[in-house]
Amino acid sequence: MHFSISPITTVPGLQERIDGKTKPLGSLGEIEGLARQIGQVQRSLTPRLEQPHLLVFAADHGAAHAGVSAFPPEVTWQMVENFLAGGAAINVFARHCGLQLLVIDAGVAHDFGPRAGLVDAKIAFGTRNYLEQAAMTTFERDAAMARGVAIARDLAGRGCRAIGFGEMGIGNTAAASLLTHLLTGTPLADCVGRGTGLGDAGLARKRALLAQAAQRAALPPEADVLTVLAEFGGFEIAMMAGAMLAAAERRILLLIDGFIVTSALLVAMRIAPAIRDYCVFCHRSAEPGHLAQLRALQAEPLLDLGLRLGEGTGAALAWPLVRAAAAFLNEMASFESAGVSAQD
Amino acid sequence: MHFSISPITTVPGLQERIDGKTKPLGSLGEIEGLARQIGQVQRSLTPRLEQPHLLVFAADHGAAHAGVSAFPPEVTWQMVENFLAGGAAINVFARHCGLQLLVIDAGVAHDFGPRAGLVDAKIAFGTRNYLEQAAMTTFERDAAMARGVAIARDLAGRGCRAIGFGEMGIGNTAAASLLTHLLTGTPLADCVGRGTGLGDAGLARKRALLAQAAQRAALPPEADVLTVLAEFGGFEIAMMAGAMLAAAERRILLLIDGFIVTSALLVAMRIAPAIRDYCVFCHRSAEPGHLAQLRALQAEPLLDLGLRLGEGTGAALAWPLVRAAAAFLNEMASFESAGVSAQD
Repeated sequence: MHFSISPITTVPGLQERIDGKTKPLGSLGEIEGLARQIGQVQRSLTPRLEQPHLLVFAADHGAAHAGVSAFPPEVTWQMVENFLAGGAAINVFARHCGLQLLVIDAGVAHDFGPRAGLVDAKIAFGTRNYLEQAAMTTFERDAAMARGVAIARDLAGRGCRAIGFGEMGIGNTAAASLLTHLLTGTPLADCVGRGTGLGDAGLARKRALLAQAAQRAALPPEADVLTVLAEFGGFEIAMMAGAMLAAAERRILLLIDGFIVTSALLVAMRIAPAIRDYCVFCHRSAEPGHLAQLRALQAEPLLDLGLRLGEGTGAALAWPLVRAAAAFLNEMASFESAGVSAQD
Repeated sequence: MHFSISPITTVPGLQERIDGKTKPLGSLGEIEGLARQIGQVQRSLTPRLEQPHLLVFAADHGAAHAGVSAFPPEVTWQMVENFLAGGAAINVFARHCGLQLLVIDAGVAHDFGPRAGLVDAKIAFGTRNYLEQAAMTTFERDAAMARGVAIARDLAGRGCRAIGFGEMGIGNTAAASLLTHLLTGTPLADCVGRGTGLGDAGLARKRALLAQAAQRAALPPEADVLTVLAEFGGFEIAMMAGAMLAAAERRILLLIDGFIVTSALLVAMRIAPAIRDYCVFCHRSAEPGHLAQLRALQAEPLLDLGLRLGEGTGAALAWPLVRAAAAFLNEMASFESAGVSAQD
């Protein structure tokens, strides 16, 4: 799989444009850095973040039946129904923050039938249980990534300039823990958290099960990222990785949510490291494995609100900041145009 | 001056309503705390944040001529013109974040004449220089506060349920430093920063001048807050304090911006400590005195973006989070209504 993703580079005049705005030099802090990044991603002094979308990729995990989550597996499809009915947190936040929501069935263990508002990209009725075998076949993995690519390219074709990533899948913090362990080298125990709300006993059990899964697969440290993905990944994670890569290739800004979305980014980064330049790290999750990821990525997120819900909620809540950064660049007056005296 | 501000208290059913939403318990972190606060401020399970406004109070400071700022004093009125023309950062952010902007001339040293979009609440053409005498007379101080009260009551009468506070005034970080020093007991040097961008020599000069001003006034540690305000305050600060008090009395949510706005809050809190319950601390400013204030208030702000622009920009950027918190309470489904299985 090849993606042609160029690192972002300096845009002539961009820093001057930022510094010429009617404000003390550098006084908008991270908003200025964000504006610079958006300008560089679009190679423009007047970047437009048109048709912003929030994609929620949903899928089930075979290992969920083994007891790695505080919620029963059927909550995945029930929450998809909740998304379609408009009642979930991501519906509320996407609506109020100005993102168009798209729900994608990447592999939920439920037959929804044809449904308005649901993209049917189902690879299978959930992955296999990675405690016993690889979660997906190489064919399924490639199909999931390819489908993600197609979704992103379709959005690019419709003029979308920013994509927020979100997910739903009971058991997917467990999968993200294993991916994070293998792709960052962080000790597994530091990558495992309470997910949707395990108690102490549940957390201990999750840790033990994931250690067992890692032992079963016995991947060497130098294992290929696609092998790691097939062993432990979820369909939503593989599909997100594909969508991220295709979106960055089309110079779309990527809004990175929390722990599970960042595990997909870790996959994508192994394939095309320059993708990092296209990422806005939206929030710091309360799920401890996210810290390990952010450290590995040397990323400083915009928000730190103790969120650990997933669905893309952190990306949606950060979106107004991103939009404000672009608007700052496009709409704010300069000292010259406003007739304001400059700094001494 | 008396204000009847009640501490906020538990609202029956509110926590149950938050916990019944389709999400893992507590997984929306600070958004849940914000939702609870908004519900308590309005004593409602379905709080509405109607008619949200961002008020920018502008005024000049006599001490600005002594060289406490990196910008010349005429920038105050030039920036007011920029606000009226729609080209400043706060115009852009208020517009994109959904706040109605109101610019208030609290005491700018410039004759604007009657102008659309500008509230003429001018107390005088700037304060006196506190290096030589009290910045304002007790009459001016009371007039400024009373005018703030009237502005907030007028907004309350028009159904406004949330007010963001912002300000403009060359030299006002210096005034805020003196107020913060005297109202929190923090050593003066720790309350003084670079403001709009002083270099090392400028900062040293600002520190020396403010120490001189403090010595000139020679206020005892137990000095009355209104005396402190008259000695060093700006008209924008006094007017904000009055507006905050009147707004909290009408149970309006207060969006607290950075260093200067928080200095007005410190004044208001001395008059009615319960006002703190009505405050959303929007961001952590890069101006060091703001840290001292937040520590004194034991406040944990929503955003930490290295902003130090003022104008209410931090309040405007935090507003979508506040609105999202209210929407979460009003629009999100419950486990029961959505038919989603609960936690094990």
